[in-house]
Amino acid sequence: MDKIVALAGGVGGAKLVHGLSQCLTPEQLVTIVNIGDDFNHLGLRICPDLDTVCYTLAGKANLATGWGRAGETWNALESLGEIGGPTWFRLGDLDLGTHLERTRRLRSGEPLSKITKDFCCSWEVEFTVLPASDDNVPTWVYTEEGELPFQEYFVHRQCLPKVSGFRFADVEAAKPAPGVLEALGDARLVIICPSNPWVSIGPILEIPGIQEAVACRTVIAVSPIIGGEAVKGPAAKMYKELGIQPSAQAVAQQYGSLLTGYVIDLVDKGQEEALRHAGLEVLTVDTLMKTNADRHRLAKQVLDFGEQVFDRKNK
Amino acid sequence: MDKIVALAGGVGGAKLVHGLSQCLTPEQLVTIVNIGDDFNHLGLRICPDLDTVCYTLAGKANLATGWGRAGETWNALESLGEIGGPTWFRLGDLDLGTHLERTRRLRSGEPLSKITKDFCCSWEVEFTVLPASDDNVPTWVYTEEGELPFQEYFVHRQCLPKVSGFRFADVEAAKPAPGVLEALGDARLVIICPSNPWVSIGPILEIPGIQEAVACRTVIAVSPIIGGEAVKGPAAKMYKELGIQPSAQAVAQQYGSLLTGYVIDLVDKGQEEALRHAGLEVLTVDTLMKTNADRHRLAKQVLDFGEQVFDRKNK
Repeated sequence: MDKIVALAGGVGGAKLVHGLSQCLTPEQLVTIVNIGDDFNHLGLRICPDLDTVCYTLAGKANLATGWGRAGETWNALESLGEIGGPTWFRLGDLDLGTHLERTRRLRSGEPLSKITKDFCCSWEVEFTVLPASDDNVPTWVYTEEGELPFQEYFVHRQCLPKVSGFRFADVEAAKPAPGVLEALGDARLVIICPSNPWVSIGPILEIPGIQEAVACRTVIAVSPIIGGEAVKGPAAKMYKELGIQPSAQAVAQQYGSLLTGYVIDLVDKGQEEALRHAGLEVLTVDTLMKTNADRHRLAKQVLDFGEQVFDRKNK
Repeated sequence: MDKIVALAGGVGGAKLVHGLSQCLTPEQLVTIVNIGDDFNHLGLRICPDLDTVCYTLAGKANLATGWGRAGETWNALESLGEIGGPTWFRLGDLDLGTHLERTRRLRSGEPLSKITKDFCCSWEVEFTVLPASDDNVPTWVYTEEGELPFQEYFVHRQCLPKVSGFRFADVEAAKPAPGVLEALGDARLVIICPSNPWVSIGPILEIPGIQEAVACRTVIAVSPIIGGEAVKGPAAKMYKELGIQPSAQAVAQQYGSLLTGYVIDLVDKGQEEALRHAGLEVLTVDTLMKTNADRHRLAKQVLDFGEQVFDRKNK
C-alpha cells in the first residue's frame, strides 16, 4: 500500500503529475493515462494525452501550449498543406517522430504499454506511465450534428457542436493495461487529476475493472472547474450543454461515492460546506498551476491532504 | 508525333529532365519515371525517383545532394532516432509531408499517377510526370547475402553486398500508368536518361507493353557511365559484379536494338567507332551535369542530335 496512483488526461493532468513527480520517487508514483482521445490520422496512431504526460515528465513539453514539444518545427505540416493535405490536427516535426515510431511498433504487434515504457526509458522518464488500456476505446461525442469522433469534435470542430453525450467504443471489451490493476491494488492514494471528467477521466474509469479497483482506495480528486469555468478545454461547456451548472460541486457529484477527499480552488470556498455535507473531506487551496512552482506546491498540498484523509479513514 | 518522352530514374535522370524542361514546352515533354525503388517504410509509401524528378522540376530539390528537398530539416528523424526508431533511410521533415499525404491518398484508393499529377499541380510543375505504373513492381536485388529489397541494398547496406541479378516483383502483372503508352505512341523521340540501366531504366522497360512501345520510336540514350565509372550510384559496381566491364559500350549493348542514337562523354571518344560499327548514331559531348547550364546545354545537344537522327531515320 505504498503507491500513489494518478489518473490523468492531457494538459491539466500532466501538470499535476509533473508536480507529483517532484514530490515522489519513481517507485511511488504510477500515472494511468486516458486513451479515449487516441486516434488514427494520416496513417499514424496518435495518443495525445499519453504524449502530453510523457513529454511533460521528460521536460520536452511546450510550456506555452501545454501540448506538443518544446522547440518544435512545422515543416512536414507545411509541406503537407502545400499539396492539399489535412492540416487541422497540428503535428510538429519532433512530435511526428514519436507517432511514426509508435505506429511502426504497434503495426508489428507490440502493445501500447510496452512501447510507452520504452519511449519513457529513451526520454529518461523514470516514472511509470501506463495507458489505461492496450485496447482501443475511441471516444465518440454525441452532438446536435450527429456522432463525431473525439478529435473531429475537439480539434477540427473546436468543440463548437453542442454535446448531448459520449460513447467509448468497445470499452466493455477493453482490458486494463498490464500494471494498471496491480498499481491500483497497491495504491495508498488514488489522485484524480484536474482533467475533464467526461472525456479524460471517464474513459479510464469505464474500462472494466478500473472503477472497481479505484473504489476500494482512498481517492482524492482535484477539481478541473474553477469559478464555474474550465482552466482549459470544453469541460464547463459540456456540463452546460448536458444541462448541468458547471462547478466544483458538479464534478464531485459526477464522481459520486468514488471520492474520499476533494481539492477545490479558493474561489470556490463557498462550496466547501455543501461538499462536506455530502460526506467529502475538502481541501481549499489555489489550484491554478501557472508555474512549475505552482505544480510542485499543489502536488505537495494534495499529497499531504491525501495522507490525512488516508489516516483518518484507516485509523 | 510531337512528344519528347524521357525515361528517368532519380538524380541523373532528374538533371537531364530538368534540362529538357528548359528547352521544351509542357505540351511537348512527358517524363516516365521508375517506380521499382518505391517502398514502404515506417508505414509510408516512398517513391524516391518520382519525388526527385518532381522536386527538381519544382525547383524544390536539394542541389547539393541531388535528392531530397532544399532547406530541409531533420527533426522528425532526430526524434525518431531518440526513441530507437530506424533512421537509415534519411527522411527530412518537408519530404515527410509528401510521403504522409501520398500514403493517405493511396490508402483511400487513389492511383499514384493521379496523386503525382495533383502534387505537380500544387508545386506548379507544368510538365507531365508519370510513374511508369500505378502498380507496385518492387525491385529485389540478388546478392551474395541473399535477395534484398532494393532500398535495403541501396541505402541501408550502401550497395556493399555483391550483386548477381535483379527481380522486379509482379512486373508481369503490372500495367503502364494512364498516359504512358499514349505518350510513347505520340513520341517523336524517346530519351533514355543517364540513369542506372539495371535498376532505374530496367524496371520501366519490363512493364508489359512499354518496351514494345519504345522500340517503335527513335530512341536516344545518354550513357550513365563516363570513363568506366558511374557519375553517381552503383551502376559501374553492378556491371563489374555481373562480370561485365563497365563502359558506355556496355550500356549500349544492354539496351541493344532498342537504341537508335547514343550520347557518350568526351572521355569515351575511343568507343565511338565500335558503337558506330554496331549500327548506332553517336554524339560525343561533355555529358557531366554539374551546373544548371550543363543540364540545359546537354538537353539541347541531345534534342538537336535526336532531331537529326529522327530525320535521317524517317527520310
